[in-house]
Amino acid sequence: MTPQRSVEEHVDHVTRLLAPLTAEPGVEAVPLTEAAGRVAAADVRSEVDLPLFRNSQMDGFAVRATDVAHVPVALEVTGDVPAGHEVPLVLAAGTAIRIMTGAPVPSGADAIVPVEDTELVLGRDDDLAGAVVEIRRPRKRGEFVRERGSDLHRGEVLVRAGTRLAPRHLAALAAAGVTTVDVRERLRVAVLTTGSELATPGESVRFGQVFDANGVALAALVEEAGAVVSLRASSDDDPETFARVFDAAIAASDLVVTSGGISKGAYEVVREVLLPRGAEVTTVAMQPGGPQATAVVDGVPVLCFPGNPVSTQVSFAVFLRAPLRAAAGLPELPTRRIRLTESVRSVPGKRQFLRGRVGADGVAPVSGPSSHLVAAMANADVLIDLPAEAEAVEAGADVTVWTL
Amino acid sequence: MTPQRSVEEHVDHVTRLLAPLTAEPGVEAVPLTEAAGRVAAADVRSEVDLPLFRNSQMDGFAVRATDVAHVPVALEVTGDVPAGHEVPLVLAAGTAIRIMTGAPVPSGADAIVPVEDTELVLGRDDDLAGAVVEIRRPRKRGEFVRERGSDLHRGEVLVRAGTRLAPRHLAALAAAGVTTVDVRERLRVAVLTTGSELATPGESVRFGQVFDANGVALAALVEEAGAVVSLRASSDDDPETFARVFDAAIAASDLVVTSGGISKGAYEVVREVLLPRGAEVTTVAMQPGGPQATAVVDGVPVLCFPGNPVSTQVSFAVFLRAPLRAAAGLPELPTRRIRLTESVRSVPGKRQFLRGRVGADGVAPVSGPSSHLVAAMANADVLIDLPAEAEAVEAGADVTVWTL
Repeated sequence: MTPQRSVEEHVDHVTRLLAPLTAEPGVEAVPLTEAAGRVAAADVRSEVDLPLFRNSQMDGFAVRATDVAHVPVALEVTGDVPAGHEVPLVLAAGTAIRIMTGAPVPSGADAIVPVEDTELVLGRDDDLAGAVVEIRRPRKRGEFVRERGSDLHRGEVLVRAGTRLAPRHLAALAAAGVTTVDVRERLRVAVLTTGSELATPGESVRFGQVFDANGVALAALVEEAGAVVSLRASSDDDPETFARVFDAAIAASDLVVTSGGISKGAYEVVREVLLPRGAEVTTVAMQPGGPQATAVVDGVPVLCFPGNPVSTQVSFAVFLRAPLRAAAGLPELPTRRIRLTESVRSVPGKRQFLRGRVGADGVAPVSGPSSHLVAAMANADVLIDLPAEAEAVEAGADVTVWTL
Repeated sequence: MTPQRSVEEHVDHVTRLLAPLTAEPGVEAVPLTEAAGRVAAADVRSEVDLPLFRNSQMDGFAVRATDVAHVPVALEVTGDVPAGHEVPLVLAAGTAIRIMTGAPVPSGADAIVPVEDTELVLGRDDDLAGAVVEIRRPRKRGEFVRERGSDLHRGEVLVRAGTRLAPRHLAALAAAGVTTVDVRERLRVAVLTTGSELATPGESVRFGQVFDANGVALAALVEEAGAVVSLRASSDDDPETFARVFDAAIAASDLVVTSGGISKGAYEVVREVLLPRGAEVTTVAMQPGGPQATAVVDGVPVLCFPGNPVSTQVSFAVFLRAPLRAAAGLPELPTRRIRLTESVRSVPGKRQFLRGRVGADGVAPVSGPSSHLVAAMANADVLIDLPAEAEAVEAGADVTVWTL
């Protein structure tokens, strides 16, 4: 008899097994244009002040505040600074320089008068030679001037280590001239499905065969949780075949996930190959997903899920989603308490994860408990988590649900 | 004077402009292995029953229920059906056939007795020749037998049109032998940033230049919202340059987004080029993000945002995120009501979108209102939405926040 564990105990066991993967992640430099969703590996400090230079917040005229203290006042227009103007200008006392939003404020100027508070009394918008502007509203020193470094000073932290890079972080990094950023390497996860009954997708299925639902589902689940699939393969129940793909998976991956081959039947290839390599096979007091195994082979953690498609997907949600999301810097998917709209029965001693769908009235189960109901599971959006001690839960009671 | 609109009016205007993009989406067939996150373009019906054949839910022995009504009873073992066994077997009355989970139930058998309720009294697990099994627990007709079609019948819908394909949908499709699926084409969105002040990322910045924060941010925002970036380019304030990249963008895209060049300055390239092509330039009563423009050029909708990095990002969040997510089948990002932890002032007549950060006590602004504070915005996780009529909101009041 294999030892029996509670769900909580197996969650703790798996979490400990995977802890080294998140404790010291690898680091890679990626271009900013490919960094969305990645996790900063270290604090990124700015090498520049932001803004880079003192610039105008408005389209208007750069002036000395003292020259516009009493309005209206007419000032000679001695220059024009469009955005991107590369020659620093100097403002003389008693004059004005036209300026566009974002353009460098001439030295000597200490305020911007927005264009709507001005009128050209000599000259034209498209020909400022000899122009004179009338200023109609006073502006205080510093008004509409963005000082250099007023957003961030050189040496300050732009993005903290551990931040998942959202568009707003990329904007700040780009503004500071950063073009590559050190991010955590994504975990490389191998997905191995097992079973002599598995047909190759796209080929015709022979009597007794089934199409492999777990390969595509596990690969998508792994990527949705922020990791990359390093290798995806299917093996029949021949130990030599499985050992071959397993060794390739170990060599290419930070983590290996298998489905099938770990229960009590006569042809359990994962169990047969991995027990001699240190696997721990256990029965977790849950339904579906009871048979579970783990191993560490050549330093690589291995998680073995049962092969029924529903069991595989529930196992991923309960044991692997949270550690993968944490490693990828993704937020935890919180559980919720929702009203159950139909009474359900449960097997005492086993924690039940029913497939459920949330509606306006609460959550209802969408299929029977059997772990082969893979089409029915597609209609679920949550798992209904019934405690191990429950024999039945009545309609109207609050239950815990996990987002799928 | 350009016409002034409320935020709600401009949201409605943009929504109408983009409606044709979502009403009749293009369709493409993609392999199931690349379909995660895509949206099914039509109902997918199963061409097979699921399960494909009557199979065992347990490792054990296939029997006739009538033969095990009285236990213990010894039955001759006349065969062995591992999973994937391709030869249909027939069970004779008064005999048993060993069977593995998922293996086809022999015709004649109508119940499975799990292995733990049996013992081989003659023969061995690895040699069933002449074996006899003792059955110790009766099982009713149908117990542990998964009937063909009990999950889904041929012709029934596996996945509804409009479903965003999650791993559980891929599992169901794969189980039914589906290898490619018709999905909505992703919207192709061009991102054009404008301004003679924009320096090329990675090159040194000259006096008066700034690094382009909007290109990388808009591209990441577009992709996060489920669309693809068809073209990304930057233009200076020369109308010929802008017209050239704009025409390339129109030719390659379902939607074009620009930043900069639409306010009241002397060098407003987007305004200058697009007004003669039917653009509608408006001022929306909001801060930041007031100047806005839209056009439809050669049937392609064009959204023009102001160029300050904060204004650009806020404009995307307020006007473009929701329609892009809807087109991609992504759920709406709901707004929430949260307690404000600090009093804030607002400009009456303009709806304010302050950058805020949510903590345990509520939400606090993380920077001043000025639209150049791109580094400060990186620390925000929400926009605090202050109504147009508000002049001040006191600490402790509930405010609406938008998730960034």
